[in-house]
Amino acid sequence: MKRNIYLKNMPLEKAQAQLINHGLIPLKKTTIDVKNSLNRITYNPVIANVSSPSYNASAMDGIAVIAKDTEEATESTPITLRKPQFININTGNPLVEPYDAVIKIEDLVERTDNAVTIIKSIAPYQNIRPIGEDIVEKTPIIPKFHKIRPIDIAAMLAGGVKTIEVIQVPRVIVMPTGDEIIRDANQLSTGKILDSNSFFLENALKDLGVQPTIHEIVKDQFDLLEAAVLKAVNHYDLVLIGAGSSAGSKDFVRSLVEKHGVVHVHGVAIKPGKPTLIGTIHHTPVIGVPGYPVSTYLAFEFFIKPLILASLRQPYATPNIVKAQLTKRLYASLDSTEFVRVKLNKVTDTFTATPLNRGAGITTSVVEADGLLVVPKDKEGFEAKETADVWLLKPLHEIDQRLTVIGSHDILLDEIDAFMRDQGMTLSSTHVGSLGGVMAMQTNECHIAPVHLLHNDGVYNQYLIEKYLSQDYVLIRGVGRVQGLYTKPNNPKNIQSLNDLVKRDVRFINRQRGSGTRVFLDYTLKQENLSPQEIQGYNYELPTHTMVASAIKNGQYDVGLGIQSVANIYHLDFIPIGLEHYDFIVYKPHLELPFVKAFIATLKNPAFQMKLKRMGGYDCEKSGEILSE
Amino acid sequence: MKRNIYLKNMPLEKAQAQLINHGLIPLKKTTIDVKNSLNRITYNPVIANVSSPSYNASAMDGIAVIAKDTEEATESTPITLRKPQFININTGNPLVEPYDAVIKIEDLVERTDNAVTIIKSIAPYQNIRPIGEDIVEKTPIIPKFHKIRPIDIAAMLAGGVKTIEVIQVPRVIVMPTGDEIIRDANQLSTGKILDSNSFFLENALKDLGVQPTIHEIVKDQFDLLEAAVLKAVNHYDLVLIGAGSSAGSKDFVRSLVEKHGVVHVHGVAIKPGKPTLIGTIHHTPVIGVPGYPVSTYLAFEFFIKPLILASLRQPYATPNIVKAQLTKRLYASLDSTEFVRVKLNKVTDTFTATPLNRGAGITTSVVEADGLLVVPKDKEGFEAKETADVWLLKPLHEIDQRLTVIGSHDILLDEIDAFMRDQGMTLSSTHVGSLGGVMAMQTNECHIAPVHLLHNDGVYNQYLIEKYLSQDYVLIRGVGRVQGLYTKPNNPKNIQSLNDLVKRDVRFINRQRGSGTRVFLDYTLKQENLSPQEIQGYNYELPTHTMVASAIKNGQYDVGLGIQSVANIYHLDFIPIGLEHYDFIVYKPHLELPFVKAFIATLKNPAFQMKLKRMGGYDCEKSGEILSE
Repeated sequence: MKRNIYLKNMPLEKAQAQLINHGLIPLKKTTIDVKNSLNRITYNPVIANVSSPSYNASAMDGIAVIAKDTEEATESTPITLRKPQFININTGNPLVEPYDAVIKIEDLVERTDNAVTIIKSIAPYQNIRPIGEDIVEKTPIIPKFHKIRPIDIAAMLAGGVKTIEVIQVPRVIVMPTGDEIIRDANQLSTGKILDSNSFFLENALKDLGVQPTIHEIVKDQFDLLEAAVLKAVNHYDLVLIGAGSSAGSKDFVRSLVEKHGVVHVHGVAIKPGKPTLIGTIHHTPVIGVPGYPVSTYLAFEFFIKPLILASLRQPYATPNIVKAQLTKRLYASLDSTEFVRVKLNKVTDTFTATPLNRGAGITTSVVEADGLLVVPKDKEGFEAKETADVWLLKPLHEIDQRLTVIGSHDILLDEIDAFMRDQGMTLSSTHVGSLGGVMAMQTNECHIAPVHLLHNDGVYNQYLIEKYLSQDYVLIRGVGRVQGLYTKPNNPKNIQSLNDLVKRDVRFINRQRGSGTRVFLDYTLKQENLSPQEIQGYNYELPTHTMVASAIKNGQYDVGLGIQSVANIYHLDFIPIGLEHYDFIVYKPHLELPFVKAFIATLKNPAFQMKLKRMGGYDCEKSGEILSE
Repeated sequence: MKRNIYLKNMPLEKAQAQLINHGLIPLKKTTIDVKNSLNRITYNPVIANVSSPSYNASAMDGIAVIAKDTEEATESTPITLRKPQFININTGNPLVEPYDAVIKIEDLVERTDNAVTIIKSIAPYQNIRPIGEDIVEKTPIIPKFHKIRPIDIAAMLAGGVKTIEVIQVPRVIVMPTGDEIIRDANQLSTGKILDSNSFFLENALKDLGVQPTIHEIVKDQFDLLEAAVLKAVNHYDLVLIGAGSSAGSKDFVRSLVEKHGVVHVHGVAIKPGKPTLIGTIHHTPVIGVPGYPVSTYLAFEFFIKPLILASLRQPYATPNIVKAQLTKRLYASLDSTEFVRVKLNKVTDTFTATPLNRGAGITTSVVEADGLLVVPKDKEGFEAKETADVWLLKPLHEIDQRLTVIGSHDILLDEIDAFMRDQGMTLSSTHVGSLGGVMAMQTNECHIAPVHLLHNDGVYNQYLIEKYLSQDYVLIRGVGRVQGLYTKPNNPKNIQSLNDLVKRDVRFINRQRGSGTRVFLDYTLKQENLSPQEIQGYNYELPTHTMVASAIKNGQYDVGLGIQSVANIYHLDFIPIGLEHYDFIVYKPHLELPFVKAFIATLKNPAFQMKLKRMGGYDCEKSGEILSE
């Protein structure tokens, strides 16, 4: 098994400089119609062909006069002008000789068709828009290397400019590689992966004004890749090879670039994104883009985008950075700068950052992220409460203005979000289990903590406030939920109750410790005198109802515990075990916040309750009522 | 002459609220291919159809094993596994039963085709990407009313989503009106105005994702406009009527909307933009967009854009505001909020704002503006040095990072800008004459002040530092320039010297007081014992060389004074009068700034000097040298 070794673990800034030094795309120009020039970049200053206005124009509705004729007019010595001493003129009409000024209609004290009376003199060129007032012919309207805005198009057209020279947009080809990669989701099967990276790159490039070519998928064979790349470097300004730059046996990008060109960078000290390769073949830049989706995303942000912008002579806007407090400890390795996708919340004056899944394969961690938390290369991570820099991925006002929910997850939160969005508000929800929600409430990280924790006296939730919080907090009634067992349709293992979990041929899948469902399971097992250790799979945990349901549907497990609405979505059989309360803890002063009010109003909204009824397994009695004061 | 009276002078915020209350476009949905969904807005949450990964996949290159087989392995008790206890597996390959973990290649201490030795146990599901690790089928990937980004497209495709419901983009029609308006610049003649507003609106709407229809130009006749508008309100979600909402005799929009619908707003307390009209006909919003280009621009920013964004359920990002000190006194009327286009400069820690031409017809005032300075409705203006809010029109880093030049204008500054842009730097130049430049240097408003002021001892510029500044300033040699008289080609009035200006049939055009050219004229007239009052036109002033040249070319005047390079551009005859020095004052500590260095390097650059030589009338001896210490 022949394997590549990374050339280096090059710091990000150095790798970026290497790319710009060796890969900058030469400036080329092309001539286009001004009318189609929006967001293109000027190659030269744009010079006006004509003046605007192109004639001396009246700036008012009124009469054109010879200023000299009006010199004597005062309130005590009015002057009457008779045609042809004046002519009528409207705004925009040309001023013709011998007239040299305009008196506006409001200043005429008497008026007939042939005579007007004035009581004020006027100076030459008053109320006139002189030739060239806006644009003077042969002078520059728009500078060089300027991104053309709508108002620029208006100005150029007013200046009589019909065509302009702009920078040619780089021609970019995206070349996905891999035997397991497919482009058509209909062909998805075990072992096949949809080429979502190429679709990402295509659209990310489009956002920069580049219309890339997407090459057909190249199989993992050196000679096939070699032929495709050698052709591409002669027809494109930039070649992006998807995957194949890691250290695996089928990763040919490095040896290919070494054979025909120069490898400038292989291995960047960032995580994700380490396997990025930067080379040139026949002076054309070639970037080996690592294959994991988050790595592709970061390679685009850190290398491809800056290269395109530099080649278009446009500034790369540095990210907006906020300081945020980690909600939990974060470990990282010393050898690279890590970019951890985080959710940001702002309940007090301080931003808090909660890390999302750090796997390089988790596309949704980027989708959900509010920012990238930067762990510097020489830092082993952050302690909880420590402050870190976070690069914003969303506008600040989107993060500032939303309801933060941390705790136990229920799909009804997604429904509440949809109802709130109708009112221009949003809900950001993080799933850490009921107890995690209580802890987040203690440290002011959220506005609402959804909980469903059974106390050992058999009562739900209320004790959490007494035990962990204070009288400054209240419990809002959420819903009654039916918990029960999920099985495949038609219940092939014939499971009727918790007793059936101890059968030898039943594979159970559990929820994580600290989750309300896990507490409910353990409580019920104890009541029924069943031993957890007799349940095959008791130690396997998944973090959500939906993951449990999906795993059972797909046949990995036979049975799991969860709420009825989720069983209905996955068309699973459902064996009810008990009813629980899923409620919301709120800090009293937050009850006045508009989005907390909207949240509670939604709980009481009949349309919302109807929606829950259709989903099944919910009881909306007293939903939205304050249970404790 | 029938005239409209503005209904009201409604405050901006109230007018905006009226528009949203009466004009919000109803939400409609349409189904599109995910692959073409970039920047569209989701109508519903997007739910995954399949999990991703859709199978348990290896996260590493290595071998698949049964975790239980490895339990005993330690450094002192290595274990050797033999096929079929393991199989080879690459990253992304499916994990098949009975294997339940992957050991990465780096952890194998010995290896043959059929046997491997390990010294560490592995737990079940280690180095595996489980089904649904990224996306769980039937769970939401993207929320409602979300603007789709490239990464969202990747996630939706990975989740097996092929089509989605998005909000239908509003159908907008732009209807230009006016007898004097034309769309084809080839037809431009006296009395005709190019319809640049429609091109602005078309492109500004495109930037919001709206592809508007541009109606043919409607002549100023009530019945023609009536027919066009009544048809449009039935086919479009928003009708924009260009011009015709003022108070003139041909302004029919108000009476038309009153006849067939409701006028909600006519007259907004903003300047420019007052004649904006907001109405509805058959429940379709109709906006009368005032006809001056800057008014159109502001009506778009304040009404059309917020309406489109609200209709697409997208937030209207409030403008970025900076505080800036006025460089001069600014008068304004009490009855409206005025938006003055300003250049911003930042030489010290404070932004300074210099107002540009305030005319509503000056498109280039928007093109050149860095921001809009807001004069509140109840304020009569600002004193010099007073601080005002400025809404940024350009990114802050563009304004922060440039060379600020204030003083006398020469077209060579545009050339220096072009040379500097090649190095990623820009030059912002404001033309206030030589003495204005010296004043700006006194108050730290600029980095460089170009001057060409003749002292009464016949020496140029050096005395300015002694008289107005201090030894902390230096003079940099710019160029020698030939000043002379401009005449029409072939010099029809046969002008040979300044003596010919006093002829009765010669119309002279002067430069403004305080400009170096004016000082040069007055000095030379005195030397030649000529009386200014004998020169016809001595009191008519234009502010730049190019405006003088253009006015002579167009026949308004016979002769003017200016530099040779500009005469060459306009193909005018040129009669040399004298040589002057056009130099640059710099504050000594600023000599170390990178863009000041680049400016001086450009002056010395042979390619730049060659360019000036081709333009004519420049002497580059010692250009870029420091003249005084």
